[in-house]
Amino acid sequence: MRTGIATVCLSGTLEEKLRAAAKAGFGGVEIFETDLVTSSLSPEDVRLLAEDLGLGLDLYQPFRDLDSVPEELYRANLRRAEAKFGLMGRLGIETILVCSNVGTASIDDDALRTEQLHGLAELAADHGVKVAYEALAWGTYVNDYEHAWRLVADADHPSLGTCLDTFHILSRGWDTEPIEKIPGEKIFFVQVADAPKLSMDVLNWSRHYRVFPGEGQFDLPKFLGHVAHTGYNGPVSLEVFNDTFRQADVERTAVDAMRSLIWLEERTAQHVAAQRVAAEHDGALAAPAAKPAMPLRTLPEVAPPSGMNFAEVTAEDTHPLERLLAQLGFASQGEHRTKPVSLWTLGDARIVLNRQQARGVAPGISALAFDVDDAVKAVARASQLKAVPVARASQAGEEILQAVRAPDGTEVFLCQDARWTREFGGGEGEAAHDGDRSPSSVGSGARGGRARIDHINLAQPWQHYDEAVLFYSSTLALTPQPSQDVSSPSGLVRSQVMQTPLADGGRAVRLALNLAPWVRADSVRGTVFDTFAEHIAIEVPDLIAHAQACRRRGLPFLPIPDNYYEDLDARFELPPGKLAALREFDLLYDRDEHGEFLHFYTATVGSVFFEVVQRIDGYDGFGAPNAPVRHAVQHAAQHRGQR
Amino acid sequence: MRTGIATVCLSGTLEEKLRAAAKAGFGGVEIFETDLVTSSLSPEDVRLLAEDLGLGLDLYQPFRDLDSVPEELYRANLRRAEAKFGLMGRLGIETILVCSNVGTASIDDDALRTEQLHGLAELAADHGVKVAYEALAWGTYVNDYEHAWRLVADADHPSLGTCLDTFHILSRGWDTEPIEKIPGEKIFFVQVADAPKLSMDVLNWSRHYRVFPGEGQFDLPKFLGHVAHTGYNGPVSLEVFNDTFRQADVERTAVDAMRSLIWLEERTAQHVAAQRVAAEHDGALAAPAAKPAMPLRTLPEVAPPSGMNFAEVTAEDTHPLERLLAQLGFASQGEHRTKPVSLWTLGDARIVLNRQQARGVAPGISALAFDVDDAVKAVARASQLKAVPVARASQAGEEILQAVRAPDGTEVFLCQDARWTREFGGGEGEAAHDGDRSPSSVGSGARGGRARIDHINLAQPWQHYDEAVLFYSSTLALTPQPSQDVSSPSGLVRSQVMQTPLADGGRAVRLALNLAPWVRADSVRGTVFDTFAEHIAIEVPDLIAHAQACRRRGLPFLPIPDNYYEDLDARFELPPGKLAALREFDLLYDRDEHGEFLHFYTATVGSVFFEVVQRIDGYDGFGAPNAPVRHAVQHAAQHRGQR
Repeated sequence: MRTGIATVCLSGTLEEKLRAAAKAGFGGVEIFETDLVTSSLSPEDVRLLAEDLGLGLDLYQPFRDLDSVPEELYRANLRRAEAKFGLMGRLGIETILVCSNVGTASIDDDALRTEQLHGLAELAADHGVKVAYEALAWGTYVNDYEHAWRLVADADHPSLGTCLDTFHILSRGWDTEPIEKIPGEKIFFVQVADAPKLSMDVLNWSRHYRVFPGEGQFDLPKFLGHVAHTGYNGPVSLEVFNDTFRQADVERTAVDAMRSLIWLEERTAQHVAAQRVAAEHDGALAAPAAKPAMPLRTLPEVAPPSGMNFAEVTAEDTHPLERLLAQLGFASQGEHRTKPVSLWTLGDARIVLNRQQARGVAPGISALAFDVDDAVKAVARASQLKAVPVARASQAGEEILQAVRAPDGTEVFLCQDARWTREFGGGEGEAAHDGDRSPSSVGSGARGGRARIDHINLAQPWQHYDEAVLFYSSTLALTPQPSQDVSSPSGLVRSQVMQTPLADGGRAVRLALNLAPWVRADSVRGTVFDTFAEHIAIEVPDLIAHAQACRRRGLPFLPIPDNYYEDLDARFELPPGKLAALREFDLLYDRDEHGEFLHFYTATVGSVFFEVVQRIDGYDGFGAPNAPVRHAVQHAAQHRGQR
Repeated sequence: MRTGIATVCLSGTLEEKLRAAAKAGFGGVEIFETDLVTSSLSPEDVRLLAEDLGLGLDLYQPFRDLDSVPEELYRANLRRAEAKFGLMGRLGIETILVCSNVGTASIDDDALRTEQLHGLAELAADHGVKVAYEALAWGTYVNDYEHAWRLVADADHPSLGTCLDTFHILSRGWDTEPIEKIPGEKIFFVQVADAPKLSMDVLNWSRHYRVFPGEGQFDLPKFLGHVAHTGYNGPVSLEVFNDTFRQADVERTAVDAMRSLIWLEERTAQHVAAQRVAAEHDGALAAPAAKPAMPLRTLPEVAPPSGMNFAEVTAEDTHPLERLLAQLGFASQGEHRTKPVSLWTLGDARIVLNRQQARGVAPGISALAFDVDDAVKAVARASQLKAVPVARASQAGEEILQAVRAPDGTEVFLCQDARWTREFGGGEGEAAHDGDRSPSSVGSGARGGRARIDHINLAQPWQHYDEAVLFYSSTLALTPQPSQDVSSPSGLVRSQVMQTPLADGGRAVRLALNLAPWVRADSVRGTVFDTFAEHIAIEVPDLIAHAQACRRRGLPFLPIPDNYYEDLDARFELPPGKLAALREFDLLYDRDEHGEFLHFYTATVGSVFFEVVQRIDGYDGFGAPNAPVRHAVQHAAQHRGQR
């Protein structure tokens, strides 16, 4: 599949955009007119630069407001078009995107439109260029891709074809099945964008909220499956207007964009294959379904992870963390053989404390590790999805751990077992024993009576939030849940859960990504903002017993306000004994249609704190109604600390 | 008018919210339940704190999902309500807000609802509290304030009244006239919020995009006029859910909020007075219209400013600015008598360069000065609108300039004349002469053949953007225009023009506020962002002649790409000579339905650059189509500088 990206998706100057697109591996780009007009590069410079970078210049766009106008205006439009055709010659671009009129259309007459499009195509032919006509979702008269295609078919000119854009088609809910009736050679261009389903006007939705494929809710594999069946084999090119991407680092956005197309290509291949199987099974096709002309690459397939293998916290001074882990009931498994790293375990929950390259570093979560069937394959998949492998020095005879870097910089390890734990504490003790466990027992969880990591909550910078969702869903097969807004004293926190499917009443892996609000910037020229804490949650089989033991060991619990318990009583009518126990140990409580949830939090060290949870009868949430309480108490503690 | 604010409008803990509301001068607050539940203050503590602060606790809110439910659920709801009534007793709050059911409503029966509301009112009476029932805009069965009022009227219980919320009423477009039919004593509470007109679902619009009165597009004075006519004299309280306010500094937001209510009170008084005059004039009322029971304060009235008196740039080293001003044709009027400040003039355009308290300060716009009829009155008005007066040391015999601080820290001077210029250059030269001009000639502009300040463009931090709009519109009577998004290499720039009305084909004052995008933050824990430049634009009578003179003096023009002129030609079909002149002097061009616009920019010094403009035949814009060119060239220059 030939990949492309419109320069408008990326931040920076035209040169920065082209270099970033090439570096991320795109086959070609669409030149967005404003990017050229504002560039100091001449059209010839742009052509040479693209050639040097091995980047095709696949489309010039957009040309607006051509059709459905009176003769005089049409003549002026042709003059305008001719100037652009000349420019395209200098750029070496063959195809121009012409959008249905939204600004000056005054005559609703398909015959006139057909004539005007034909006239444009004639002029284009004179200049050796091709016109791809597209229906904008908010086009005055033409806003449906089938209508645009009918006009193109009626105009019947070799220099005129249509352009299909997923946003304009799927935002309006148009049926995508009829795409297959368009001959592939008359589709001159395909633009793809994803979007969250929002109930707002389609123009603003389009201009600000588009995202890359896999980051929204459109069924793009189905769309592209239809396109593939037409015989189309041209560029599949991203056109994403997004306020955040326009501000983010251009090279990172280009990588995110490329990942989204690789993901889309794989999903489309799977969709097409599944359709063939279904069709053959139904006998709906006498002959086997034709294979699409568009080559669709697939990736090494991986199953969702079967558990969290460990979590790592890095700090210059790990003593406060050690104290906290000991109070939580974790046992020290000693230092690593060769590195300034220690291992702490509680049942199957493993936490690594890392003092490497930690000069001046306050405690923070630095790595996550997932249990996978085949680590080499998982890293191969992630690498093909543009994840950057992490190199960690390893001595001879030590386990080599496979890892890649997540968008926020967190290192993501992919482990088949826990043999690496043997490298701690001189090969003695529980860690060595743990290392011998077969991988199948990993992730069996507190349901088997052993503590485990229930979930990890990471704060995400706003520029990389959508990228992070696609990263974890595409590389690790975690499923994103609808995001939720949680109120906190420093703003709303957007919380996005990524998890594995329900199995045996539980889930192997739960990861929560929190979009941290920005606070307390007092001028355009400088900003200060609160550290946004992240946490590791441990599931235990009996929370109240565990809390009692933690209290005996002197654990600093996050204190929960009395008002919370009064409200809890008003909402749930709990037995008085239970309410008293909750109150005594600063425990929080929630209930869903399955069961109950008990949890508590510790004080924060650096930017890390811990949570201990118990899930009863298949409770499947995270105690979301309690999150504002946690945020408020942490905020108050932090601000007391600052005074 | 008794003022109030819901704690949910503000960031921070409940204690921080209460202190900020009291400091800003609010009469009372609505306690938002989550703020209490997450607080470590007991209800008794909250009551005492509010008493200490002189703050009324006017409402407890919200109580959800009471009505339209089967008997068993209704019983549970009453139990839940009773717990809250008890809590209100401890808080000393008399009134609770009950919203129409959106979650559990299953029976659409007004008789049942009336009965259930009556039952709740009976229970409330037992606890000595009152219930204010409100229709949410997205209520399952009750979403219209007239429907809510009919239910309250039918339930007919002294402890039951209605609550009117502007968002729920105006977002749905309900007619506000019928408000006057509700007896004032049955309106138990009034909540106000403004909002920009957005075409999105009403729930998300309400939860994220509400703003304070005067910052949106609702006709709130008309609404409140109707309320005043009912005889209602209770709190008018802000309930604004806004993502930005939730993150901004609590004390600043409280001041912004208070300003919005003072503004609303004045506008309502004006609206009511205008209605009385109209009614009496029409003879529609035999007797004079009744005066509303609600006392409505007014403020000292001011006319829109008649010009920009000066602009000030502060820097440790002003030499690069002096060079730039000289190249632009400004003349030095010498140093101030007693301060390290110099004055530069070009016609009526005055720029002050300030080296006071400028240690380590890069050049930046520090003050604006507006021509007003009565400076003392203007500052009195601004002060009543919570603007903070600026104290500047002044020697005996020097002009005392009146000033207040704008939300972004810019000092805003209010001047009746330019006599202050006599303090520069030893009382000699043009400055002294200028100082003698009568104020009426100030702001007559380039139309009179003299250069003047055309507009000033200030970058605004995102937290204070809405606040800035209200600040300039309420204190200075500038009129906000619809905002526009302009693309730049580091993101979309939201640009909001505030200006005086058209007079003699021109405008005395134009101010553009630009919401600067955030860029290049690479982790949650640290951020770096581009300096976002601001500028001062000078209007001259003959731009091409001026540009020629500037070039002779060696002015560093912002270089405009060739591609721009090709596109200009395609769009406007300019005479070849004109196009060549534009190209030669790096001039930009635009055209609107009135006339033409010519302009050019200088290089940037610190965070300041200058623009020179010529308005032909009443062109009324700012060359918005050219803004992306300017941003792109500045971005490229800045990034070259950084390499």
